[in-house]
Amino acid sequence: MHHTRAAILSVGDELTLGQTLDTNSKWFSEQLRDMGIMPIEHVTVPDDVAAQTAAFARLASIADLIICSGGLGPTLDDLTRQALAAAAHDTLIEDPEALEQVRAWFAGRKYPMPEMNRVQALRPTRGRCIPNAAGTAPGLYIQLNTATKPCDVFCLPGPPSELRPMFEAHVRPHLRPPEGRTVQTRVLHTFGIGESALARLLDTMMSRDHVPMVGTTASGGVVSVRIRYEGPLDAAAARQLLDATEAKVRALAGSYIFGAGDDTLPGAVLAAARGRSHTIGVVESCTGGLLGKLLTDTPGSSDVFAGGFITYSNRLKTLLAGVSPALLESHGAVSREVALAMAEGARERLGTDHALAITGIAGPDGAVPATDARPAKPVGLVYIARASLAAPSEVRRFQMVGDRESVRLWAARSALAMLWRHLAQAPAIKFLREVE
Amino acid sequence: MHHTRAAILSVGDELTLGQTLDTNSKWFSEQLRDMGIMPIEHVTVPDDVAAQTAAFARLASIADLIICSGGLGPTLDDLTRQALAAAAHDTLIEDPEALEQVRAWFAGRKYPMPEMNRVQALRPTRGRCIPNAAGTAPGLYIQLNTATKPCDVFCLPGPPSELRPMFEAHVRPHLRPPEGRTVQTRVLHTFGIGESALARLLDTMMSRDHVPMVGTTASGGVVSVRIRYEGPLDAAAARQLLDATEAKVRALAGSYIFGAGDDTLPGAVLAAARGRSHTIGVVESCTGGLLGKLLTDTPGSSDVFAGGFITYSNRLKTLLAGVSPALLESHGAVSREVALAMAEGARERLGTDHALAITGIAGPDGAVPATDARPAKPVGLVYIARASLAAPSEVRRFQMVGDRESVRLWAARSALAMLWRHLAQAPAIKFLREVE
Repeated sequence: MHHTRAAILSVGDELTLGQTLDTNSKWFSEQLRDMGIMPIEHVTVPDDVAAQTAAFARLASIADLIICSGGLGPTLDDLTRQALAAAAHDTLIEDPEALEQVRAWFAGRKYPMPEMNRVQALRPTRGRCIPNAAGTAPGLYIQLNTATKPCDVFCLPGPPSELRPMFEAHVRPHLRPPEGRTVQTRVLHTFGIGESALARLLDTMMSRDHVPMVGTTASGGVVSVRIRYEGPLDAAAARQLLDATEAKVRALAGSYIFGAGDDTLPGAVLAAARGRSHTIGVVESCTGGLLGKLLTDTPGSSDVFAGGFITYSNRLKTLLAGVSPALLESHGAVSREVALAMAEGARERLGTDHALAITGIAGPDGAVPATDARPAKPVGLVYIARASLAAPSEVRRFQMVGDRESVRLWAARSALAMLWRHLAQAPAIKFLREVE
Repeated sequence: MHHTRAAILSVGDELTLGQTLDTNSKWFSEQLRDMGIMPIEHVTVPDDVAAQTAAFARLASIADLIICSGGLGPTLDDLTRQALAAAAHDTLIEDPEALEQVRAWFAGRKYPMPEMNRVQALRPTRGRCIPNAAGTAPGLYIQLNTATKPCDVFCLPGPPSELRPMFEAHVRPHLRPPEGRTVQTRVLHTFGIGESALARLLDTMMSRDHVPMVGTTASGGVVSVRIRYEGPLDAAAARQLLDATEAKVRALAGSYIFGAGDDTLPGAVLAAARGRSHTIGVVESCTGGLLGKLLTDTPGSSDVFAGGFITYSNRLKTLLAGVSPALLESHGAVSREVALAMAEGARERLGTDHALAITGIAGPDGAVPATDARPAKPVGLVYIARASLAAPSEVRRFQMVGDRESVRLWAARSALAMLWRHLAQAPAIKFLREVE
């Protein structure tokens, strides 16, 4: 049989009660969609055997694949085993091999297996267990038979660190996407343009009947263009089609594109600097360390990123980055002049090729009312400066929107984009949220 | 009628396809649960009128309240209006007041209303529109009648920034939790102890039939204890019960508790320092700015948090924090001695009352094999030091587990917890993940 329509079932009181955020359903959907299997529904039910049994039965009638997570622990609340057996009109037996694996897991940690964990080796008589290398809970597989068709059910434990490797090793190899269909996806990442402006640039490419499909998603200022082909063409022809569409997207929006696939904005900055053997420093006021944190999210950033200053107080702007007290007094800490002085002072003191400076009002408080001498400084006002050893400095003014977290993330990412454009010698643009 | 059992329905291809993470269902569940209305199921369906109509009908048969989000935009994909009308066996009419609100929204932004937005003013003839102050999409309310009972349905647009204020202003006031039932919740936050060790301390208090219910949730090292009463007692009696249980939890686990309710670990550190008019600085190696970022997530942190150094390279550990090259050479950057020198050097140079230093191997690479002179330094090894103007320094060694992000978050939070315990004069503990 082939798997065409999939349902994702999540189990747990902590999910329905809103104590835990479900990230598994999204992850499963991404995996399935990229294989050409369409996820048609996500369902979350509590630790309740009747609700869970009913969900298995209903989903089996509308899908030919169910991926379930949760409810496989050793406690009385963990009822996936019972519900699956009930939905299959089957009973549970102990699986000797699974019991051995549970025991071995504890033995490897020098504990005896608590007796309560024995239930984790139960499986429906017609099902089988799925090994779990990262925890005590084996998964379960069974085929449910509805009035009209069979439905394959895979049950995995809830923790992402357990279910992801189990899916890769023991579920994915058994999935059979519809035959004669090719699915290929390509993603390009932009920064500096809004989602609706990008949609206007791409125009008819984004209509629902365009082949391949072109869609955008936005998160914290990064707008990603997803190009997706799903249809009867063979892989080479599909690739050609994606190549052609990607070329069109690049022709229309190329000046905003910093990467593709798994690329990140900090990663693009680090790679561009590495290519020139340049080093980077930072000096952060309102972002308080976030810019440095983003640059060091990527492993192996230490050859490029040296470090920097967090100058949250004005005293440290002077002490560490050498910003003159007179400048702070005359223009205020959130000003073009101070941003520039921070970047240039930090670059010199850190001895790096480049330095990025951020100073702004992240909110919700801190807005400065207008005076005779100066216009008002609203929440969201951010100045970002780049100083470089072998190139003129630049400074830009932004009016960010949203809450404190948004203002700070957009500020840090805008700083990264400024440096990336400089390093990549990308054409000058006016950034989204940049103001005169 | 009263609302006892609620279902949460989310609508959108971007959700079922796994492009967007659904955070709305968790948020709705939290709100409902804290009112005493039990969320019994979360469902996500694509932009498909048949699937959505079927979901409304099915959920109305098992719940007496449905909160739906998404599918209220102006495009052809937005089908919540049609599906709701179909489920109610009703037709759609234009609501003049809603149309006026959509027009006014555009007028406020100095745009004429695009003709396509006119569909957003449609509602089932027996339903009503719910005003949206933050966007163009009005919400919808209708009562569905099933064979056995009525079910109230509230439909809101998908963006959290729109649906949350709409829920507060126009949904919550209409919800009727079961009468004669009181729901009260209290949350205490701990750091430094694992979830299972805490469960052993709390012992029988955590059994499923304990009144009030006591449960734990863990996230990035913070383990929270949730105490919840739901039952027939009046508010004062319920509060007494919660007080008694809270007192027992504090007696058993008090030395790990840093806050309650909305308190955060950085917030607790800032408050404790503020109470003594102390200032704080940081010097970060493997966390690269994350500690500073966490301290500045809280608005108004500038009176306590001065700033600090990001010393990702060894050169900057010497240049900025004054760590001697000889010390770096003899002990390595990830060592007790260097952590201490970083903290003491930074505190002196920053002129703060306290400084926190973090140096470690965040991974996935960077492990140092053993030599004749030194034992191996595995991924996850982190040294954290605190230096203070008026108290002896301390330094602790940790062996963190998990991926790079986990190692860094646990490191930053452990540093905060060390300072919090010092400021709060909390008794000495061995932290979770701390090793000799």
